[in-house]
Amino acid sequence: MKIRDMGEFQFIRSIAEGCHFSTQDLIRGIGDDCAVIGPYGERVLLVTTDQLLEGVHFLGGHVPHEQLGQKAVAVNLSDVAAMGGEPRHLFLSLAIPENSRVEELHAFYRGVKAMCRHYGVNLLGGDTSRSLGGLLINVTVIGQGLEEEILYRDGARPGDRIYVTGTLGDSAGGLRLHTGRWQAEEPEASFLKAAHHRPVPFVEAGRFIARSRAATAMIDLSDGVASDLGHVCEASGVGARILYDNLPVSDELRKIAEANGEDAKSLALRGGEDYRLLFTVPLERAQDFQVRFEREGPCEIFLIGTVTEEPGIRVVRKGGEEEPLSARGFDHFG
Amino acid sequence: MKIRDMGEFQFIRSIAEGCHFSTQDLIRGIGDDCAVIGPYGERVLLVTTDQLLEGVHFLGGHVPHEQLGQKAVAVNLSDVAAMGGEPRHLFLSLAIPENSRVEELHAFYRGVKAMCRHYGVNLLGGDTSRSLGGLLINVTVIGQGLEEEILYRDGARPGDRIYVTGTLGDSAGGLRLHTGRWQAEEPEASFLKAAHHRPVPFVEAGRFIARSRAATAMIDLSDGVASDLGHVCEASGVGARILYDNLPVSDELRKIAEANGEDAKSLALRGGEDYRLLFTVPLERAQDFQVRFEREGPCEIFLIGTVTEEPGIRVVRKGGEEEPLSARGFDHFG
Repeated sequence: MKIRDMGEFQFIRSIAEGCHFSTQDLIRGIGDDCAVIGPYGERVLLVTTDQLLEGVHFLGGHVPHEQLGQKAVAVNLSDVAAMGGEPRHLFLSLAIPENSRVEELHAFYRGVKAMCRHYGVNLLGGDTSRSLGGLLINVTVIGQGLEEEILYRDGARPGDRIYVTGTLGDSAGGLRLHTGRWQAEEPEASFLKAAHHRPVPFVEAGRFIARSRAATAMIDLSDGVASDLGHVCEASGVGARILYDNLPVSDELRKIAEANGEDAKSLALRGGEDYRLLFTVPLERAQDFQVRFEREGPCEIFLIGTVTEEPGIRVVRKGGEEEPLSARGFDHFG
Repeated sequence: MKIRDMGEFQFIRSIAEGCHFSTQDLIRGIGDDCAVIGPYGERVLLVTTDQLLEGVHFLGGHVPHEQLGQKAVAVNLSDVAAMGGEPRHLFLSLAIPENSRVEELHAFYRGVKAMCRHYGVNLLGGDTSRSLGGLLINVTVIGQGLEEEILYRDGARPGDRIYVTGTLGDSAGGLRLHTGRWQAEEPEASFLKAAHHRPVPFVEAGRFIARSRAATAMIDLSDGVASDLGHVCEASGVGARILYDNLPVSDELRKIAEANGEDAKSLALRGGEDYRLLFTVPLERAQDFQVRFEREGPCEIFLIGTVTEEPGIRVVRKGGEEEPLSARGFDHFG
């Protein structure tokens, strides 16, 4: 059987069993945004690794190298943020086509280092080799947190309120502009393109949510609400109801989507790479939490729905009309 | 400027500056076999990451997938061994051509897991995506140790004795057989090929050497004695004298090299991927250490030379004739 016939998710399931050969220092293995190891003194460590491959995850020549460096770091910091952790250490493997321009590679490292500097993360090592294809990037980030503050995907309970830490769909809109599928004027076009190329990891928001000890589950939105909320529901053994009208959409996305004959809220539901955090808070704590977040939190948050006992995700439109939402994420071999 | 004109080592130097933005938990950054972070309670953590790319580090179709999985793990465990640490956690990123056979990928994971099981290492996560080229592997390993036992490259002092943990050149001989440059009979041929495809990380030996607290510096031989001893000398600000006749060579390598008109000891000096440990012990402790290692140690060790105050590596042949050894390692863009 070829892997393209099996698909990514079934393949991952087929290899995810039987991976643990020691219980020492193991808190959480495969299946969340980060693995969790320790405890080391009072702390636990969070570890995440992600690839960014030319031609698969980005198009060579279309993204300035400095932005590419920023993005490679940001998507990994976002995984640490999604557990409520503080990113600390970064490792970067690079495979480089031999005709690459050194100036572009230095621009890439400028982007990496600027992001590291901003979040107080040290670049501590990696591996460099030649690539026979395009530029191949692999980033590993180690973060830390207090064990009792770490948030997983599997803690959501029926009745919990579902929040996100910012507007949704901007990155998907930026990609449509970038590939020429949409047309738009400035300054809205640049806003959406920046959302796609320069995602911001919600590290401070993740820390704030973790420290509040009010949340029950958290994930970062890399594949879109439909897919990532699906992961939370599956891990927690619950379902969810999303209020369509509550999906937060930027003015820029609304305007450009409309001009191009598309529904911004549909992108908000399904578009990937927003890297907002999605988290759940028990009903009885939700109001206090929301007031406190609005007063002291580092960003806006938006209530987008409720966790349900019944499995599956349903979207509720004005008037109460419900429809099921398929939770399928991007399959690399699908 | 193109990277092939600059070369790998100058490029790495050009980006290795200005990588630290926080002093918290930072013990050692870029420049050794592992980065060292912590301390976490009594322990420090060791982190290493390595790529193994089809067409660059291995030829697709020539290596059984199970051996490839073993090797991808072994070379990273060897980096932890080289610091005297105990490997604990492993992360595996894989980019897979879409026409790959699932059976071969499962064989690859069998090799990964067999190695993890043997060393009590947990496979805790990774990333899977599609490759437009060949199979792309990136492994990150986290190990641990006591801070005062960790061995670096920069501790060698003039007068120290230089040891290696096994015979040298077998892997280079295996590669010559594999590429058809050499011909040989069984069982010697299989012995050398296995040395190339199934390297053994010297984890127990590394722990024994670290616990002894007798050694001053350690490295694993990934690029060959000439190159890796060169790293130790450069980091320590010293030179070395290698006793040519002392270079340990297996009977298999000696026999096959001779039959193919090559000098086995020359491969022992320059051949890569042996993954033995090379370490230094002060003269006054060397004899006791050697006796203790021979009695209680997990493998054989061989005395191959002495650290000198004068920089550079010289090879001493029978009769006292000396010649300088260039320490240049494999340059991916050279």
